[in-house]
Amino acid sequence: MPDISERGLQMPASPIRKLAPLSDAAKARGVKVYHLNIGQPDLHTPESALEAIRSVDRKILEYSPSDGYKWYRDNLVKYYATFDIELTPEQIIVTAGGSEAVLYAFMACLNPGDEIIVPEPAYANYMAFAVSAGAVIRTIPSTIDTGFALPHVDEFEKLINPRTKGILICNPNNPTGYVYTPDEMQQISHLVKKYNLYLFSDEVYREFIYSDTPYVSACHLKEIEENVVLIDSVSKRYSECGIRIGALITKNKKLHDTVMKFCQARLSPPLIGQIAANASLDAGEAYLKDSFDEYKSRRDFLIERLNNIPGVYSPMPMGAFYTVARLPVDDADAFCAWCLSDFRYEDQTVFMAPASGFYVTPGLGKNEVRIAYVLNKNDLAKALTVLEKALEAYQYTW
Amino acid sequence: MPDISERGLQMPASPIRKLAPLSDAAKARGVKVYHLNIGQPDLHTPESALEAIRSVDRKILEYSPSDGYKWYRDNLVKYYATFDIELTPEQIIVTAGGSEAVLYAFMACLNPGDEIIVPEPAYANYMAFAVSAGAVIRTIPSTIDTGFALPHVDEFEKLINPRTKGILICNPNNPTGYVYTPDEMQQISHLVKKYNLYLFSDEVYREFIYSDTPYVSACHLKEIEENVVLIDSVSKRYSECGIRIGALITKNKKLHDTVMKFCQARLSPPLIGQIAANASLDAGEAYLKDSFDEYKSRRDFLIERLNNIPGVYSPMPMGAFYTVARLPVDDADAFCAWCLSDFRYEDQTVFMAPASGFYVTPGLGKNEVRIAYVLNKNDLAKALTVLEKALEAYQYTW
Repeated sequence: MPDISERGLQMPASPIRKLAPLSDAAKARGVKVYHLNIGQPDLHTPESALEAIRSVDRKILEYSPSDGYKWYRDNLVKYYATFDIELTPEQIIVTAGGSEAVLYAFMACLNPGDEIIVPEPAYANYMAFAVSAGAVIRTIPSTIDTGFALPHVDEFEKLINPRTKGILICNPNNPTGYVYTPDEMQQISHLVKKYNLYLFSDEVYREFIYSDTPYVSACHLKEIEENVVLIDSVSKRYSECGIRIGALITKNKKLHDTVMKFCQARLSPPLIGQIAANASLDAGEAYLKDSFDEYKSRRDFLIERLNNIPGVYSPMPMGAFYTVARLPVDDADAFCAWCLSDFRYEDQTVFMAPASGFYVTPGLGKNEVRIAYVLNKNDLAKALTVLEKALEAYQYTW
Repeated sequence: MPDISERGLQMPASPIRKLAPLSDAAKARGVKVYHLNIGQPDLHTPESALEAIRSVDRKILEYSPSDGYKWYRDNLVKYYATFDIELTPEQIIVTAGGSEAVLYAFMACLNPGDEIIVPEPAYANYMAFAVSAGAVIRTIPSTIDTGFALPHVDEFEKLINPRTKGILICNPNNPTGYVYTPDEMQQISHLVKKYNLYLFSDEVYREFIYSDTPYVSACHLKEIEENVVLIDSVSKRYSECGIRIGALITKNKKLHDTVMKFCQARLSPPLIGQIAANASLDAGEAYLKDSFDEYKSRRDFLIERLNNIPGVYSPMPMGAFYTVARLPVDDADAFCAWCLSDFRYEDQTVFMAPASGFYVTPGLGKNEVRIAYVLNKNDLAKALTVLEKALEAYQYTW
């Protein structure tokens, strides 16, 4: 058979995926597995979205426009205006999830060998999309000891060279829950302007900011308007990851038109997904407030409980629904695998994501895990008890 | 602002898209435009699919597995078995339309600079996906005079060099409607085996073969089982282009696992689309027979009428729902644009796709158009009258 492509060989495999068979095996043996490993919210999708799907009365499920339906983009304009992000419908391209937006942003902006700077730990699939585009991710470590604050701007500047084409941030951050301060956003803005870079900004968790840090969108940075590529998705805010609706937003007409050539090639974003996403906008303040309150209350509970487990430390995440915690183990990959393969407490165990998969620099995050608080508090409490028991038992295994 | 990527600059823009504003302008002035330009079927989606959407009773629209739901892949196994294509669910990856399947096939198989051989005219977006992967499409012209039969195998062999990595066919063919004969498929098989190539085979129109030519799938070619990548989509057979459900099928485990890394990065194919596609499998023989009969009857009507217009020639397409016809004009691009911008017959005009967009070799297909028979016969008759009148009028314009 012919060879696999180089990029195919380079594509990273997620550490969560590697552990999934262990989780399946545990479940097959009747073990209750608490999933703290994935960003699949457990909250209900808005009823308005479910009702819109049940009310589809079309006779033909036809292609939508390649940039998405105008009625949906018109409503998105109003949505973004509530965050003081002023857009026109022509600046919004509807995509198949935030994933497609990242992929096409990279494809349209980056040549093979071009570099983008990303603070780590970072969402693992950015690396995969960079490999897809042949681009190189250069990372700047942020550390748990400073609560994963943005590294000083000097650290970015040290990495900048003629191949540097952009900076990528995720704000609020997956996996750390950090929210960039207005000062930090200004520093990024200056750097982007000074070196004429793209700023890719993934802001899918903007609804979930629990601290007093004001939300500063990359789109608020007036002096780099043409450099910003906003990545968005309805998956997390409306608990509808499966409809695959995201958006790529740019005020840069030339970039918009280039991205559109990729979008035209793939013809159309999902039709039913657009109907559901559009109806989700009608869910109202109450839905988002309930989600916010629920996640905030889980966060407070989770972080307090975590920090009460001997040897465990988690900073207080400011947003999103994740935290990266340090565990009293040498190798969190091995510990997470052991929890699934060997450890049981009252026929229960936990599935956490080893943080190593979110770092590019080898060796970083070895004793850290990402925990998603996508379980109700009752289950979260049980999962934390299991984690505490697991850590106790683990010290006697070697 | 920073530069656009090279691949972004190289991405082809579809000639149909370039003409779309003219069509919009005509419609805005109250002109009835007959759309013969796009592959958007006008037949109804199966009621079983529409009903399945209306019956979605989930509370959370969550991610599906990255390779698609097992229940859908199990049912696809049964579907393919009816065409003597023997598969396991593990050989099927559900994708966001056939488009995503082509893109990931190229990404997983082709390095930048690798070449694939494609008979032309060809579906224009293959070129876009090749540019996305940095690959080079080398074409072998087929001609209207031989009814767009596959060029002799010697013509393929002349193009093969150390960078040649695959052959791509679309069978039944978009845009020509040609169906490869068993002999031609055997020749391709030998060539693929001899030079250890990939065979990418897009077979989304398999239900629509009107001639006695038996359908030979690339998956029927036993001696190249590991080399074949089957591209599929439910869009055309069930008239549900908007749900974005396709498939990438390979018996090559290593390739499957590589493609899965791209699929895991984008997380999930559309959830509601899978529900609709799965229910479409229950539409039954009657639905597909009605579609077949309708398209066949339109084909017979269209081709006879076309060949009765002075100076027009169309071969009889064997499958799909397109034909490429030769018109008595020097420049079909200009003629198609003129139909939209200037010509009116009883407040009507036609929108056809200039065939030049389906050829890579400059100058080929200059006097050809692709016509999709996705209008009912009544409208098709009116559109053909308008075309005849347009051709009469056009000769006096220059």
